[in-house]
Amino acid sequence: MGPLATVDFLHKLVRATPAQSDQDHVPLLVRFCPEVPDRIAALQGHGTSPLPALLQAARALQDAGAQCLVMPCNTAHAWHEAIARELTIPFLHIADSALAATAHLQARGRPGLLATDGTLAARIYHRPATQPLSWLEPNNDELQQWVMPAVRAVKAHDIDHARALLLRAVQALRKRGAGAIVMACTEIPIALQGCDLLLPTIDATEELARACVAWAA
Amino acid sequence: MGPLATVDFLHKLVRATPAQSDQDHVPLLVRFCPEVPDRIAALQGHGTSPLPALLQAARALQDAGAQCLVMPCNTAHAWHEAIARELTIPFLHIADSALAATAHLQARGRPGLLATDGTLAARIYHRPATQPLSWLEPNNDELQQWVMPAVRAVKAHDIDHARALLLRAVQALRKRGAGAIVMACTEIPIALQGCDLLLPTIDATEELARACVAWAA
Repeated sequence: MGPLATVDFLHKLVRATPAQSDQDHVPLLVRFCPEVPDRIAALQGHGTSPLPALLQAARALQDAGAQCLVMPCNTAHAWHEAIARELTIPFLHIADSALAATAHLQARGRPGLLATDGTLAARIYHRPATQPLSWLEPNNDELQQWVMPAVRAVKAHDIDHARALLLRAVQALRKRGAGAIVMACTEIPIALQGCDLLLPTIDATEELARACVAWAA
Repeated sequence: MGPLATVDFLHKLVRATPAQSDQDHVPLLVRFCPEVPDRIAALQGHGTSPLPALLQAARALQDAGAQCLVMPCNTAHAWHEAIARELTIPFLHIADSALAATAHLQARGRPGLLATDGTLAARIYHRPATQPLSWLEPNNDELQQWVMPAVRAVKAHDIDHARALLLRAVQALRKRGAGAIVMACTEIPIALQGCDLLLPTIDATEELARACVAWAA
């Protein structure tokens, strides 16, 4: 949905594919759906539901021959179950991919969950089939001052501004004792690319890309 | 067709779009078609024709609602006319986009055409409706020693090796008097990103992306 986030996901998927020539790569059907109504506004109870547009896009991909679906937008996973119910193909969940990679970090202390207020409110990283993690989350001030403006800045291509805001949010989680950081919004790794967060870091986009490659293998 | 080249094209298209939020972006349908048979082998007269696979992909995009088609692979434009004939939607030509950007550089001397042997043999940058340019092209030794191995290296994700090879090909064109360089293979700007070629440089991928944004505006 975020177009730069979709490009970042595709780049990670292509790089994660063991390939010597074009013909070794995974065939992909991609829909950039910038017209999907704002997910965060909808979760806050104002604004149109994105579900009809998401369902339409998912069905169109299935009808065009897709054999597996992914959605590189964490917040939109609030509607994952509602979409999955309408499909006959598997629909990989971004949090399942990220949580699998987070498992081995639990000994380091509570993991920090860097995500939008919508992703946190919809409890997208509390998966029913998974042992619940004791997440450290940004508080409301941190969300409204740093995380949410950073996500909007990436969407407006202002990466430097987004990076500065997100580094403050990471620092706050670190000070409260986070032992790792999960980047659980697909705009965040775009801004933090190449930054040393001084903590082990899981990139949900990268983990979803790897899950796709593993699915296709 | 080259998956990294498709990602590079999409990144350039998203960055070229004036946008403050997701909803300002261009809706896109994308097919990564790694299964399309090798274009270069087909142009050399050995190997399967890619035309049936290209036609199938183009028709599928048109049937899925695409209103305009582009193909971020220069060599595959050998089949542009055969595909365009079968479509009802416009099909932008990558060389037309790049040639429009090259026009103002002609006063600087003969432009260098950095392209695959297939693109050169199929005369993809000699467009019927355009004043013919007096291109400086890599000779056969330069193609086989530097350009073609570099293109294959990008497809195998060995960007550093590709860069070293391409810089030798650029230097050879510069020594023969090139006044500008047109990167007319979508793998080439991936390898030369951030390099100063010491000459004005046109990136056909970037120009095709801009043409898409202009078409959608």
